[in-house]
Amino acid sequence: VCSRLPHVGTTIFSVMSALATECQAVNLGQGFPDFDCDPRLLDAVEAALRAGHNQYPPMPGVPALRQALARKTEALYGRRYDPEHEITVTAGATQAIFSAILAVVQPGDEVIVLEPCYDSYVPNIELAGALPVRVPLGADFRPDFDALAAAIGPRTRALLINSPHNPSGRVWQQADMLRLQALLAGTEVILISDEVYEHMVYDGQPHQSAARFADLAARALVVSSFGKTFHVTGWKVGSVLAPAPLMAEFRKVHQFNVFTVNTPMQHALAAYLHDPAPYLQLPDFYAAKRDRFRAGLARTRFGLLPCEGSYFQCVDYSALAVPERDLEPDAFCRWLTRAVGVAAIPLSAFYAQPPAAQRLIRFCFAKQEATLDAALARLARL
Amino acid sequence: VCSRLPHVGTTIFSVMSALATECQAVNLGQGFPDFDCDPRLLDAVEAALRAGHNQYPPMPGVPALRQALARKTEALYGRRYDPEHEITVTAGATQAIFSAILAVVQPGDEVIVLEPCYDSYVPNIELAGALPVRVPLGADFRPDFDALAAAIGPRTRALLINSPHNPSGRVWQQADMLRLQALLAGTEVILISDEVYEHMVYDGQPHQSAARFADLAARALVVSSFGKTFHVTGWKVGSVLAPAPLMAEFRKVHQFNVFTVNTPMQHALAAYLHDPAPYLQLPDFYAAKRDRFRAGLARTRFGLLPCEGSYFQCVDYSALAVPERDLEPDAFCRWLTRAVGVAAIPLSAFYAQPPAAQRLIRFCFAKQEATLDAALARLARL
Ligand SMILES: CSCCC(=O)C(=O)O
Ligand SMILES: CSCCC(=O)C(=O)O
Repeated sequence: VCSRLPHVGTTIFSVMSALATECQAVNLGQGFPDFDCDPRLLDAVEAALRAGHNQYPPMPGVPALRQALARKTEALYGRRYDPEHEITVTAGATQAIFSAILAVVQPGDEVIVLEPCYDSYVPNIELAGALPVRVPLGADFRPDFDALAAAIGPRTRALLINSPHNPSGRVWQQADMLRLQALLAGTEVILISDEVYEHMVYDGQPHQSAARFADLAARALVVSSFGKTFHVTGWKVGSVLAPAPLMAEFRKVHQFNVFTVNTPMQHALAAYLHDPAPYLQLPDFYAAKRDRFRAGLARTRFGLLPCEGSYFQCVDYSALAVPERDLEPDAFCRWLTRAVGVAAIPLSAFYAQPPAAQRLIRFCFAKQEATLDAALARLARL
Repeated sequence: VCSRLPHVGTTIFSVMSALATECQAVNLGQGFPDFDCDPRLLDAVEAALRAGHNQYPPMPGVPALRQALARKTEALYGRRYDPEHEITVTAGATQAIFSAILAVVQPGDEVIVLEPCYDSYVPNIELAGALPVRVPLGADFRPDFDALAAAIGPRTRALLINSPHNPSGRVWQQADMLRLQALLAGTEVILISDEVYEHMVYDGQPHQSAARFADLAARALVVSSFGKTFHVTGWKVGSVLAPAPLMAEFRKVHQFNVFTVNTPMQHALAAYLHDPAPYLQLPDFYAAKRDRFRAGLARTRFGLLPCEGSYFQCVDYSALAVPERDLEPDAFCRWLTRAVGVAAIPLSAFYAQPPAAQRLIRFCFAKQEATLDAALARLARL
């Protein structure tokens, strides 16, 4: 078989989860919680199943869920999206991002990503027949607007951004979004804004959704994830918000990709969204985990990077007391999983060409306290 | 926005279902049952939800489901697929077909479809950057191997087939599969076999899965649908079987499209597959509906086409006693929905250039007896 993606292997998240299972390691690699969701959400699924909601929903999603999302978005970000024409439910955020790219690019177009970035973006762009243009994030993983301005040209069709940022945990500020808005003004660049960690922004900061900024929202597909927000990553339900003309193109692709999304889960999420408390409490819930995990790491030789949002904590391992501190991040993570019993994700997996001297790995702290403590006890030995 | 699919609108199935709802018509259009699944399958979902199966499953699918599918395929079609490397669970058959096409074509390759065909195939090929080559089915919607042989050339990368056939209900015989196998021998053509109606083959015939034929199976991605088989079209769970090298390419695309598929539904289906009775009884279950519906139609002026498989019955409306018999199929279906109160799908929607004189529409008979009878009462007036 002649490969369409010759340089691609199995995604690092699957590889490390499989290795963690094999080694019975504490799995702080792949980003998912090791605790269950609110039982009321399960009750809502059961009600939907028993009410007979088991056949195809409307192609853009169950109306009640789109309406609930419109209300939530308006309350949080001050923008009204029309559930009929501007909101679509997707089979998770990954499918949303892929379909968004497919919908807006023509073969030969350029699509800009900011490195490090999630490992699906570049293959998505390649599968769409477009050319990925990798622009490095700046110091401390903040946006580098000079580098971005230099990368935008006549063939730039779209730009992917992601805040809170996976893997770095960096969060874009209002000033960043305003600078982006000014930079894109007068261009035709479409913005794909991956906001799956929108409810994990800490220390009292608000999430600066692209939906908040009129001139960004007018050109944006805003991607979110019910799985991340409600601790049900295995349900594979996400969403896209976009102005009607963009959404019309998105739906053309979506309908011929997955056609539509799990009906009972959509009904359950629609019912569950009536109560804003679960997502409004999320920053406190995860900040407590972050703080506990950081406090433990501060007692080790790992170097802590900031974590403003997401449920990821990055660390530098170059000052450890073991010779493996000289390994490259991928080899280090395999060693850490096998020999120390803690799985992590190498930041190198988020780059085409990882910076040679970078010695960073990512831990996921969406875990029970006992899990975090068990990992910390093992990491403290290094 | 510059459209990636300029000639595409909303899929006919969504359009007709929306019109049926608006007109309170009996909906025999879009292919889904109007009855619920086995309550034991719902019990199995609840058990999975409460057992905490709510996070990401392994990328290729829950192992127990892949193992159950391997056993079922071996029992039915005599071929053993390795659950580890040759079976992947998908977000429905549509996503499976799209990912399969994306995985095996290079831009500029040709992919053959046999017209009439399901409306996602050609846009899928276009999104993959390949060239659709439309080969008409022969008389009575049987395969035309001379036309197919003439269409295969050095740029042919893949061929899509579909039996039982949507929309015609035609079923490929063993002799057809053997002829196909002979035709493809010595070529590099990859076969994508859409077998979502595999358990709806009537009159004692077996389903001639591509998996039964060694030299076809060696080049085939075989697509199936739990939603169609178990009356849960809204769950969006399907599967692909393929030899390991082909499957490796499929998974590269799959992981960056949807990544993975609803976890609790996968666990439920794995448990439910232990009992073969539900799918072994399906031909009798649907044949009874087919026979009832055909008997009713035989008392009208609609001309009945054969139905060997699938849950679709095609009819010719050119001999009706109303002037609308002269309308083209799309306009006729809209009139039938609005004025008569029965929604159907025009066969013209399955063609790029519908045959000018064709006056065929498709009814779905996956409905309760009362629904079929209500539709028949309305159709009898014509
Ligand atoms: C889609 S699997 C990985 C989940 C995730 O977003 C991550 O670990 O970065
Ligand atoms: C994906 S919606 C339509 C279901 C179907 O297969 C059909 O009606 O042909």
